[in-house]
Amino acid sequence: MRDIEFVKGHGTENDFVVLPDVDAQLDLTAARVRALCDRNRGLGADGVLRVVRGSAVEDAPSDVDPDGWFMDYRNADGSTAEMCGNGLRLFAAYLVDVGLVDGPEFVVGTRAGARPVRTHEDGSVTIQMGPARIFGRSQATVSGSAFPGVAVDVGNPHLACLIDGDPADLDLTVPPGRDPVLFPHGVNVEFFRRKGPDAIQMRVHERGVGETRACGTGTVAAVAALLHLENEPSGSSYVDILGGRVRVEITEDGSTLTGPTAQVARGNLDRKWWESAS
Amino acid sequence: MRDIEFVKGHGTENDFVVLPDVDAQLDLTAARVRALCDRNRGLGADGVLRVVRGSAVEDAPSDVDPDGWFMDYRNADGSTAEMCGNGLRLFAAYLVDVGLVDGPEFVVGTRAGARPVRTHEDGSVTIQMGPARIFGRSQATVSGSAFPGVAVDVGNPHLACLIDGDPADLDLTVPPGRDPVLFPHGVNVEFFRRKGPDAIQMRVHERGVGETRACGTGTVAAVAALLHLENEPSGSSYVDILGGRVRVEITEDGSTLTGPTAQVARGNLDRKWWESAS
Repeated sequence: MRDIEFVKGHGTENDFVVLPDVDAQLDLTAARVRALCDRNRGLGADGVLRVVRGSAVEDAPSDVDPDGWFMDYRNADGSTAEMCGNGLRLFAAYLVDVGLVDGPEFVVGTRAGARPVRTHEDGSVTIQMGPARIFGRSQATVSGSAFPGVAVDVGNPHLACLIDGDPADLDLTVPPGRDPVLFPHGVNVEFFRRKGPDAIQMRVHERGVGETRACGTGTVAAVAALLHLENEPSGSSYVDILGGRVRVEITEDGSTLTGPTAQVARGNLDRKWWESAS
Repeated sequence: MRDIEFVKGHGTENDFVVLPDVDAQLDLTAARVRALCDRNRGLGADGVLRVVRGSAVEDAPSDVDPDGWFMDYRNADGSTAEMCGNGLRLFAAYLVDVGLVDGPEFVVGTRAGARPVRTHEDGSVTIQMGPARIFGRSQATVSGSAFPGVAVDVGNPHLACLIDGDPADLDLTVPPGRDPVLFPHGVNVEFFRRKGPDAIQMRVHERGVGETRACGTGTVAAVAALLHLENEPSGSSYVDILGGRVRVEITEDGSTLTGPTAQVARGNLDRKWWESAS
């Protein structure tokens, strides 16, 4: 039986175990995903990115190339997920790094469909994020203070608030207050301020999760909101989040996000450990 | 320049990165230790165990063999530590596994002095824990209830409480109340109950830390307290803690702890990542 290879890495501090499984031989049970992601008993990660051909994935969408590489994403709890932008960047950088694709432009299959990516020499990767649609104004409340914001749909709902003060001063340990009529199913809330001519500084509270170090759709929502407030139909900006710096470009019919990736270590899982984790 | 090898593993869920550095070439700065132990940006661990010869360590105690293997332990914050029982087990199992010692009985150098160890075929390791000295009776209070316990010195102070109920029912999110006269510098508190003829079930609150999944001196204190309550000068017991099962043996002049080790993965750190982490 062959060794079970892995790569540990992260994108803006959202960290993953990449598991190459080019011949679809791995018995990656939910229990093994949980063990892998366990930060004390396993390697530790926010999720697992299995590298397989599209043809090996039963629930692959119809637009996915069966002969292309597919990002089989698993959450730390063992469940599958459709997509993860930070994971997709690391996945794409890995494919180029080990020579599984020629790069720099190619398409990765995901449960959310085929995703075009573009890798860069510095390890960063550009991915398509889809259109950002403005759908209103509202406000978020934090510690009793109200912050006006722009409601943005990036596949999921956001309220992006341009603030005067330092986002670092906000207490985001509890979910910001929101308008329950405009956001009946909750909302991701961004607080950002300008930081020079071509950058914003941002923090984000993700619904159902809490504050996170990186939220790709949140960075897109913030730049879309900023352009909306400036009456610009398109544009781009760097976005400094807790996990690092990304660049968002908004066009009239879509958006892209370019962000860093880091590969930390590579090696083999212990066979005895793998067997015991089933 | 050679690859930078590592092994990730744990002892009762206290997890470590083992860094073989047999020729003392690694520039293991505090910043690199912090990066390695960072659970999102690095590999993630409670600490780093560098494998070097005793002669390579400036502050090695005088009883350490300069030609023997030395466990250069670093905390996740980059500082050095004298000893760590869970780490010592993993360190000893690693040495045997890769053939750096013949085993099964040998001595490992630590900043707390030379430590004899004995490895077993199932991956478990026995280490010397020193004498457990009873020095009084006292009580701990949890959620307003008082639990009588035995005060035990195992190099550090413990209050080991034999309870009637299930330790799982106790709220240990806040430090248990203690007698400030008997324990002026705080105390580690164990709550345990009998679980069959040869085992106890235990939880532990470590002073300055909170509840932990494994505390070697705490398991020794609990078995010593149980024997004291039974008027037995020596004996042994399994101890089930949150992180797994260990065995403690108390003799008239010392104690041993036998516990499991698990090696999860091995490989190489990414050179670019290592350089950037300095």
